[in-house]
Amino acid sequence: MSMKNLKDELLKDYDMSLNYNGVNGERLAERLDQISRIGLTTDFGSSRLGLSDGEKQAKALVKNWMLEAGLEVVEDGAGNVFGKLAGTLDYQTIMSGSHVDSVPNGGHFDGPLGVLSALEVVEAWKDTNVKPSKSFEVAIFTDEEGARFNGGFTGSGAVTGQLDYDSQFKRTDGDGKTFEQVLEEYGSNAVHFKQAKRDFSDVELFVEVHIEQGKRLEKANLPVGIVSGIAGPSWMELNFYGEAGHAGNTPMDDRKDALVAASEFIYKVEALPGKVSPTAVATVGKLQVKPNGVNVIPGQVTLYVDIRDIHEETRDQLIQLVSDTANEIAIKHKLKVTIDEMLRIKPVPIKKELHLKLEETFKTNNVEPLYVPSGAGHDAMIVGNLVPAAMIFVRSKNGISHNPKEWSSLNDCVRGVHVLKGFVESLMEK
Amino acid sequence: MSMKNLKDELLKDYDMSLNYNGVNGERLAERLDQISRIGLTTDFGSSRLGLSDGEKQAKALVKNWMLEAGLEVVEDGAGNVFGKLAGTLDYQTIMSGSHVDSVPNGGHFDGPLGVLSALEVVEAWKDTNVKPSKSFEVAIFTDEEGARFNGGFTGSGAVTGQLDYDSQFKRTDGDGKTFEQVLEEYGSNAVHFKQAKRDFSDVELFVEVHIEQGKRLEKANLPVGIVSGIAGPSWMELNFYGEAGHAGNTPMDDRKDALVAASEFIYKVEALPGKVSPTAVATVGKLQVKPNGVNVIPGQVTLYVDIRDIHEETRDQLIQLVSDTANEIAIKHKLKVTIDEMLRIKPVPIKKELHLKLEETFKTNNVEPLYVPSGAGHDAMIVGNLVPAAMIFVRSKNGISHNPKEWSSLNDCVRGVHVLKGFVESLMEK
Repeated sequence: MSMKNLKDELLKDYDMSLNYNGVNGERLAERLDQISRIGLTTDFGSSRLGLSDGEKQAKALVKNWMLEAGLEVVEDGAGNVFGKLAGTLDYQTIMSGSHVDSVPNGGHFDGPLGVLSALEVVEAWKDTNVKPSKSFEVAIFTDEEGARFNGGFTGSGAVTGQLDYDSQFKRTDGDGKTFEQVLEEYGSNAVHFKQAKRDFSDVELFVEVHIEQGKRLEKANLPVGIVSGIAGPSWMELNFYGEAGHAGNTPMDDRKDALVAASEFIYKVEALPGKVSPTAVATVGKLQVKPNGVNVIPGQVTLYVDIRDIHEETRDQLIQLVSDTANEIAIKHKLKVTIDEMLRIKPVPIKKELHLKLEETFKTNNVEPLYVPSGAGHDAMIVGNLVPAAMIFVRSKNGISHNPKEWSSLNDCVRGVHVLKGFVESLMEK
Repeated sequence: MSMKNLKDELLKDYDMSLNYNGVNGERLAERLDQISRIGLTTDFGSSRLGLSDGEKQAKALVKNWMLEAGLEVVEDGAGNVFGKLAGTLDYQTIMSGSHVDSVPNGGHFDGPLGVLSALEVVEAWKDTNVKPSKSFEVAIFTDEEGARFNGGFTGSGAVTGQLDYDSQFKRTDGDGKTFEQVLEEYGSNAVHFKQAKRDFSDVELFVEVHIEQGKRLEKANLPVGIVSGIAGPSWMELNFYGEAGHAGNTPMDDRKDALVAASEFIYKVEALPGKVSPTAVATVGKLQVKPNGVNVIPGQVTLYVDIRDIHEETRDQLIQLVSDTANEIAIKHKLKVTIDEMLRIKPVPIKKELHLKLEETFKTNNVEPLYVPSGAGHDAMIVGNLVPAAMIFVRSKNGISHNPKEWSSLNDCVRGVHVLKGFVESLMEK
């Protein structure tokens, strides 16, 4: 992207009339800009892997802003940062935040926007002399993307006690460093990491602002949307075993072509999500053929199916349909298929009452309340297993994410802050 | 394979009653064995790449046998060897042979059997004091397999003047040696190579004995078969261009999934050969997905279609059907497809009168005359563009080829010599 800096680019078409109730677009742009300078790539993208110096620097920057805003800051052994504003009644906490790590050469909004939106709510209250009745915490979770260790949700998993420590400590990064070595370089260690688990009984709710990473809001011409639910991904590995042979000398009726069977499967899988739910999706993104020679009938195909829905029941129905389809096709083609589940994360539903509160807030801010499912996982998916969770999506330009071209206009981002603020305030009222 | 040597293994179940009319199974076994010792691999396979020392040694061995059998031996600048027995009338030549190079770790029959069968006919005549009326030439063509330079039919292409010299001299082998360097190491050079082109006006017919490399004869329980025609392979590269996207955040109805389109294509291609001809085949053996991530909708799929038939008309109809199918599917899925032809070799038809002569010979030898198409290319496909060609297939155990497990029983091989001899003699009669 040919831009001098993120701040100027964001402010180019900023509508100053969105600066009201203490929310300040220039401040948000300035902070997004400062984070973007850490790990800036030659493509003007972000590279701040989990537990890297870049992630640490970005956290240090935000911690300073938290302290300046009057928050009480703590950091746990997993590197998660919590900045707390004590409520005047202080019996319950609303938590909001996201992450500041990125994928390699990713964008500047995925993560930082959620952290800075929560902080902007605090800033707005400070500037307008509002003292919230309940406590409010701004959270930065470590290593959400998981790009370094092929994992993800490391910080939110550790603080909620949902992380599988055995698997986590077996992981190594691209340089061959173990997770424990990296933790120690970061300034923590295995003992402190495991002590990061926190009692969430004081947390009433977690709400996360995040870019949509899809095109639904753009198509509806809306700046922000209400996340209807967070899909739990399921990953399956399928292997179709046929019989390799010479492409010239094996008649069509004497073949066990693993790729023909796999292709029928992929072709048929596309029609299955619609049978269970309008929000369900199924994708074959990765596939390998063996031996993969132009004149050799494929003897084996390995492929992966990514299945998601925001409802666990329909997601699991879809998993079953996909398995049944694979087995039927294997029988039809007289070859063998194996199906292995690699991952199955529970979808996180969002409570009806939270949806209604979000709808009201959207209307107050003159935004049509559109429901958008979250197909991607987020820290809210992890925290949402312990406490009620909600999410607000901000429109993504062209739906692009995990890419230097990832973009959300400052107007849309500030709208996100307004609805977040309104929503949190509505929760304080009860 | 756990065998002491090829000869003992071949002779284990040899039916001595097949030694008649001067044809000698032990001699054939001994010669197959001697060639197998050149480039023998630890798996008991053959590695004699084109223009390697191994191929040269194997040719030297055969040249000695040719000289001992009374043939006049010449070698051209492409390394092709021709051993000629002058006919008593000498106005026309019947040529028969094959190659002695192999793929890496290939078998012991693909190539050598054709050369030694032709030589065995000469030996049989010599032992029974037969002087053929027409001349007979035993041919060894250089580098049929093309494993070294990703080409093939180098010798038969050069001697018939069909080789594209420009492409050939641009090729390099796995060690980075140019074709010209390798030629010089072999003892020839570019000038002599180009001078290998020969006037084929004296050649009445070329006939090649070869292993089937398929299972049709095995299924029919027949030792040898008549090749109905030699399929000309056509290779097409197709690229389906979709739109990469997040597998979770892109609704099913807003996708341009290149792999779903490619899969529908592969699934539908399987049904196309049967629409044009019972001998036609189409295979997608090689496929690559980009970016090939479990949670990323495929943005591009590159795949290759290998299309063959023994009839040019139906083969070309099939190419058209495959192209049309790709285009229809691209339109249906609203994405782009490109189709590039990489190779289109003319199928070689075999004349009706030659088929009838072969049928008679088969009957005389008490073998049911079964017609089997040749899906693979052979030197006869190249020579067959200049002069009438015929082929005799010998049964392959389990259809396996290009593998140390390649096997044909000595009984079947000797049957092949008998029908070759009978066929050649029938051509002398006219």
